[in-house]
Amino acid sequence: MITINENYLKLQASYLFSDIAKRVAAFEKNNPDRDVIKLGIGDVTKGLMPASIKAFHEAVDEMANDATFKGYGPEQGYEFLREAIAVNDFKSRGADISADEVFVSDGAKCDSGNIQEIFSQDIKIAIPDPVYPVYLDTNVMAGRTGIFADGRYQGLVYLDSTRENNFVPALPEEPVDLIYLCFPNNPTGSTISKQELKTWVDYARDNKALILFDAAYEAFISDDSLPKSIFEIEGAKEVAIEFRSFSKSAGFTGTRCAYTVVPKECAAYDSKGNKHLLHALWNRRHCTKFNGVSYPVQRAAAAVYTEQGKAESKALIDYYMVNARAVCKTMDELGYSYVGGTNSPYIWVDGKTDSWEFFDMLLNKAGVVCTPGAGFGKCGNGYIRISAFNSHDKVKQAMERIKASLA
Amino acid sequence: MITINENYLKLQASYLFSDIAKRVAAFEKNNPDRDVIKLGIGDVTKGLMPASIKAFHEAVDEMANDATFKGYGPEQGYEFLREAIAVNDFKSRGADISADEVFVSDGAKCDSGNIQEIFSQDIKIAIPDPVYPVYLDTNVMAGRTGIFADGRYQGLVYLDSTRENNFVPALPEEPVDLIYLCFPNNPTGSTISKQELKTWVDYARDNKALILFDAAYEAFISDDSLPKSIFEIEGAKEVAIEFRSFSKSAGFTGTRCAYTVVPKECAAYDSKGNKHLLHALWNRRHCTKFNGVSYPVQRAAAAVYTEQGKAESKALIDYYMVNARAVCKTMDELGYSYVGGTNSPYIWVDGKTDSWEFFDMLLNKAGVVCTPGAGFGKCGNGYIRISAFNSHDKVKQAMERIKASLA
Repeated sequence: MITINENYLKLQASYLFSDIAKRVAAFEKNNPDRDVIKLGIGDVTKGLMPASIKAFHEAVDEMANDATFKGYGPEQGYEFLREAIAVNDFKSRGADISADEVFVSDGAKCDSGNIQEIFSQDIKIAIPDPVYPVYLDTNVMAGRTGIFADGRYQGLVYLDSTRENNFVPALPEEPVDLIYLCFPNNPTGSTISKQELKTWVDYARDNKALILFDAAYEAFISDDSLPKSIFEIEGAKEVAIEFRSFSKSAGFTGTRCAYTVVPKECAAYDSKGNKHLLHALWNRRHCTKFNGVSYPVQRAAAAVYTEQGKAESKALIDYYMVNARAVCKTMDELGYSYVGGTNSPYIWVDGKTDSWEFFDMLLNKAGVVCTPGAGFGKCGNGYIRISAFNSHDKVKQAMERIKASLA
Repeated sequence: MITINENYLKLQASYLFSDIAKRVAAFEKNNPDRDVIKLGIGDVTKGLMPASIKAFHEAVDEMANDATFKGYGPEQGYEFLREAIAVNDFKSRGADISADEVFVSDGAKCDSGNIQEIFSQDIKIAIPDPVYPVYLDTNVMAGRTGIFADGRYQGLVYLDSTRENNFVPALPEEPVDLIYLCFPNNPTGSTISKQELKTWVDYARDNKALILFDAAYEAFISDDSLPKSIFEIEGAKEVAIEFRSFSKSAGFTGTRCAYTVVPKECAAYDSKGNKHLLHALWNRRHCTKFNGVSYPVQRAAAAVYTEQGKAESKALIDYYMVNARAVCKTMDELGYSYVGGTNSPYIWVDGKTDSWEFFDMLLNKAGVVCTPGAGFGKCGNGYIRISAFNSHDKVKQAMERIKASLA
């Protein structure tokens, strides 16, 4: 008899975005004359950059001719892209990452979910709260948690991110083996200093733990004292894996390209205490279960690292950050406290009330959709996440409406 | 302490293609004046079809403008593609598959590897021999096998495909829960009749087993009495999942688009014997760990189903099948027995000697590269796989050389 992975039965139905969609649909039905402005989901809105579009077209033309056609490529990505990534995203910032430590993929979500396949079943996992739900769900699916009770999965160590710790969690009090960190953070928009990140690297080194560092939002960092990569921290290469994406830096959410860095000295252990290099394990997983990213997409991604591409990527980020500043200004004027919005496209606002109540108030009074913080974990309750991903015009309108209705 | 998934340590290093590459490199070094013709790897060589190229370019242009830009799409694929697949690949052949049973992905390799995540750890698995190595390796990684001994992993049921059974394995003698089938087969090129396939469907129904049917090579079937989909068989929707790909039918090996069909009535059971629908489980897996295929790639794939696309796809397949016939003719002339080559791009030749010896002979005498059958499993020894994926000119040359050197 074919039987199922019963860990799936522990998963809580993800009501967050469907609940939001239902409430928005109801509002629109009852208010057909009002247009709703969406600052909820973290999806970009601006077209791909001209540098990427040009490279994309050229690569499609290469695919049209037998002489330049590309069939199966290297599973890890083409050298032209891996090299551009190593040089521009790491070496330029003093992080000694080489091209063959870069694994190109179709999404940081896929990678951050799939990576746990190379670890043993009985490791102790630390996950921030609030957090991007994929870290949690993929570990539930893999059977590394108990049941869901009192708002949390049993067997995990939750790292509370609260106003008290400025949304940078403290080191865990009990020993953990695998630690998820995400900075600039989704959903809070908070950042971590090099010194704070070093305490995590040191913890991992001292405890033979491993850090999974999600840097999908690094492009929004303008404060040059902040680390864009964990590999800017001394000693991190032995104890960290980093996830990056072109989704936000180059608007690739619908184009699909990302990458994961597994340094060659990064290690884990078998049950006898023997050391194993994770680069070889991930390479085996990647080559066995993945066939590489579409060639034209890799060309479009590589164009982000040309001089034109860099300027256009900066302009794209700057465009959204104008929105972020507008949101922050409105929150300041209304007297709401928040974090994020300076080195991040997300603004995490203390709504001074239940997340869903605040969500409903913004929707009903201002016709603006945000994301209730409670959807990201227990510590998210009381907060809402406002996203800077929309046009200047829409954000301006949204802020005017919020001011008019909440002032 | 962070510990590894020790099942990875059971994996046999995949020497097949690296061994081939080494031998070819050595030959080329010693024979700088001879050019080697590669009929080994199963990768297409002809450029993308004009219909796909046109749709690809148009979609890239859509991505350039804010008004038509596409961000995150539905993880399961766009409706335009899912609907085209359901209508053209299934309903047209009497298989009642609807668009929402189709999950678009970036590769059949990924899907056939990832699918086992939704099953329990302790199922009994039946895998053909010889076989595409991914079925085996992903189950080893997941801990569903014992160690490798005497050329096989312990704990699996191997389904021998030999000349005696015309390369269509017999039903297993011991009970199994999950069965991998691939027709037209990689590597043997053998096909299965509707009647034979029905015995498998009936077996699965009688034993509450599940069939994973890999139909990646269905486009090469010209004999209309043969099933292109397992869903052409009555009762299959309750006991089968099917994998399909645009890699071979439309030359997408470097473009990346595939899909998996999980019918809504397809079920598995929990340890208490309760029935669960696999559509919901796979949907949860797919949405949690995958973010959809690149929008322009989906447009390029959908173009395969236009009138122009269908004609061009047929011409593409016909092109390679001219090569397949040339290979078969040469083997006939030389008196080698083989299977495949009529409804499949692969010709599985009985070399009447050890696979690697035959490989070396073809390389050294004719300068032609094939794939030694032993690389696909114990039952593959003695055979070689010749692929039809190359230009007419190269295949013609290769066959002339083989005839001259082996006759």
